[in-house]
Amino acid sequence: MRVEGFTAGAAEAGIKYSGRLDLGMVVSDRPAVTAAVFTRNLVKAAPVLDSMELLEKRRDFRALIVNSGNANACTGSRGLEDCASIRKEAARLAGCGMDQVLVSSTGVIGSFLPMERYFAGMEKAASALCEDGLDDVSRAILTTDTMPKTAFCNVVSPGCTVSMGAVAKGAGMIAPSMGPPQATMLCFVFCSAAVEPAFWQEILQEAVDVSFNRITVDGDMSTNDSVIAMASAASGNTPEDGSGPLAGPLREAMSSILQDLARLIVRDGEGATKCVQVRVTGARNTHDAELAARAIANSSLVKTAFFGQDPNWGRILAAAGHSGASFDPDSASIFIDSCQIVARGMPLGQGAEAEAARNMRKEDFSVTIDLGAGPGFFEMLTCDLTDEYVHINADYRT
Amino acid sequence: MRVEGFTAGAAEAGIKYSGRLDLGMVVSDRPAVTAAVFTRNLVKAAPVLDSMELLEKRRDFRALIVNSGNANACTGSRGLEDCASIRKEAARLAGCGMDQVLVSSTGVIGSFLPMERYFAGMEKAASALCEDGLDDVSRAILTTDTMPKTAFCNVVSPGCTVSMGAVAKGAGMIAPSMGPPQATMLCFVFCSAAVEPAFWQEILQEAVDVSFNRITVDGDMSTNDSVIAMASAASGNTPEDGSGPLAGPLREAMSSILQDLARLIVRDGEGATKCVQVRVTGARNTHDAELAARAIANSSLVKTAFFGQDPNWGRILAAAGHSGASFDPDSASIFIDSCQIVARGMPLGQGAEAEAARNMRKEDFSVTIDLGAGPGFFEMLTCDLTDEYVHINADYRT
Repeated sequence: MRVEGFTAGAAEAGIKYSGRLDLGMVVSDRPAVTAAVFTRNLVKAAPVLDSMELLEKRRDFRALIVNSGNANACTGSRGLEDCASIRKEAARLAGCGMDQVLVSSTGVIGSFLPMERYFAGMEKAASALCEDGLDDVSRAILTTDTMPKTAFCNVVSPGCTVSMGAVAKGAGMIAPSMGPPQATMLCFVFCSAAVEPAFWQEILQEAVDVSFNRITVDGDMSTNDSVIAMASAASGNTPEDGSGPLAGPLREAMSSILQDLARLIVRDGEGATKCVQVRVTGARNTHDAELAARAIANSSLVKTAFFGQDPNWGRILAAAGHSGASFDPDSASIFIDSCQIVARGMPLGQGAEAEAARNMRKEDFSVTIDLGAGPGFFEMLTCDLTDEYVHINADYRT
Repeated sequence: MRVEGFTAGAAEAGIKYSGRLDLGMVVSDRPAVTAAVFTRNLVKAAPVLDSMELLEKRRDFRALIVNSGNANACTGSRGLEDCASIRKEAARLAGCGMDQVLVSSTGVIGSFLPMERYFAGMEKAASALCEDGLDDVSRAILTTDTMPKTAFCNVVSPGCTVSMGAVAKGAGMIAPSMGPPQATMLCFVFCSAAVEPAFWQEILQEAVDVSFNRITVDGDMSTNDSVIAMASAASGNTPEDGSGPLAGPLREAMSSILQDLARLIVRDGEGATKCVQVRVTGARNTHDAELAARAIANSSLVKTAFFGQDPNWGRILAAAGHSGASFDPDSASIFIDSCQIVARGMPLGQGAEAEAARNMRKEDFSVTIDLGAGPGFFEMLTCDLTDEYVHINADYRT
């Protein structure tokens, strides 16, 4: 994966893991217009606090440093000092100012970064910088993920072609709420277009709202969630401010790429074997639809039934019933894919459920509940809750 | 367990299970003053709707019929008709009016009750009625529970001794919210005192608020949660209206019995190996303390760490951080039992964590987080999230 204007490299720094890439560096050959959204958790990791402060002052950055294995969260003033040291060293390596560097971390909370190894790793990553390095970075940022996650597209408009590529990680502590509502989820988007900062931030926020903010793995919200988008301007177009020919295509590309990555995160959810689209229709309004969708998508009982391939619509209905959404259970209908199993609050019998159970054998299926109360609609992606999830998270730090 | 004025019996009706008691009957030898609180889930099972309607009209009941294996939920008008048929038959067996009978069910949602077997079971339960039958009833109401749950005390006041005994069930779908905020949880309290209905309802609601409303197993709220308290007046005291000598002792006894049963439910949580008291102190106010306590007690990541005996305070702090409670993470302290592992947002190191991990090897321990933001305080009981929980709930209906 290659995005004009950016070079990238990764290294085995041995921050927590050994024998794998765990530190990545991305450098823009000129100041890149940068947008970002971060976790809304009150408890924010040092690199999140550090980046938020920098982004208040400027929107042009030259380098991004990211590590896995250690979140540098709950590390007090030393965590912030470590961020500054990293930025200073990265600035030296990238040939820019230390305030033009963003740092991002994911991993265990509450440990100080091993700075000596970190610096040695940055040195190695810098010497590995190349135009095709983003794929290595996509591997360096993984924690409990089982596969790297990347998305890429070309945005074509009259007289100009720009490329947009992104890497993401995330498998647990996923219920992102960046901007409006909740993951350790990291996503870094790189684009060769020239853009105005306000437009870039706007389309990033919009794309996050319809992607990462609509997925859940375990309903927890991380201290480190970050989505950072950098646009290098290497394509040489007139900076897009929302009124030019690239506005529509960039907006669509951003949403499409983030939705692809969000789906990959759910598919790679810790221990997950199913990726399930939860759709709520017929709610009184969008807010009610979202309440019901989040309650269903986060219900341990619903998620274990997905694992068991059991069309246990009673749990689905009960989750909607305690979500805070207002509806009459006797008006509710439930479908697994296109197979209806409940009509007006009543089960349609074993034949329908047997067909629904067959649909649930697939890795991907949808659950739709029509509340019969209005025009409100919302959808979310979730995964199943499995014994493997428990093993991963009971043993995570040992 | 014996409460003056009541006889009880149970039977193997074969409603879903075979070879075990699954239907119970309790009869008061005179009209018993009855109080009740039910699930706040919008989706209410037929027997809940049926009982709520009866309780709006009268507060004196003679009999209670309860079954496990089938919740009679999401069964539409037929579910309600079945409740009426059961009441009619029970009235014949108990020698009372059909509006003096309450029906309660727990088990699978969305199936019609097998009425023929139900009637045969009631006949058997009625013929088994005896003064010591409550213990059999405590077994008949179990579903995924691994042990019967009962509590008993004598309330002594000058010139009068009354007995209070209760049976409960519940292991999954536990996050009761009856009265104010969410379980399939059933609890039936029997007392020999004479009481006024308003006082009886008041002390029941109060006791539920500090017991079942402060426990969670999986954060789901059931369609069938019910707590029903019947007072036979067999003790012959002047009916207690809240101003008499029995007011205090009855209030304390009710709270004490419900708290004992709530703890037994958490201890028997589906797949649970730990019973953990989550305490939030130093919150801005009680509301914030409750938000933080519920977020911690319901976090899958925190609960799997309990299973792993891992003092993963980062997850605890992160859960509080996204709970909605307002606090400064740099002021937060965390303790496992009396062992402090975080002071002002910073970890106290491996020595403290090793001691905390030793505390977590016990079946019972507490987690305290002091938010350092005010006088607010709240506590909840929760359990760990284990692979066994997943197995139980993935395979429940098969």
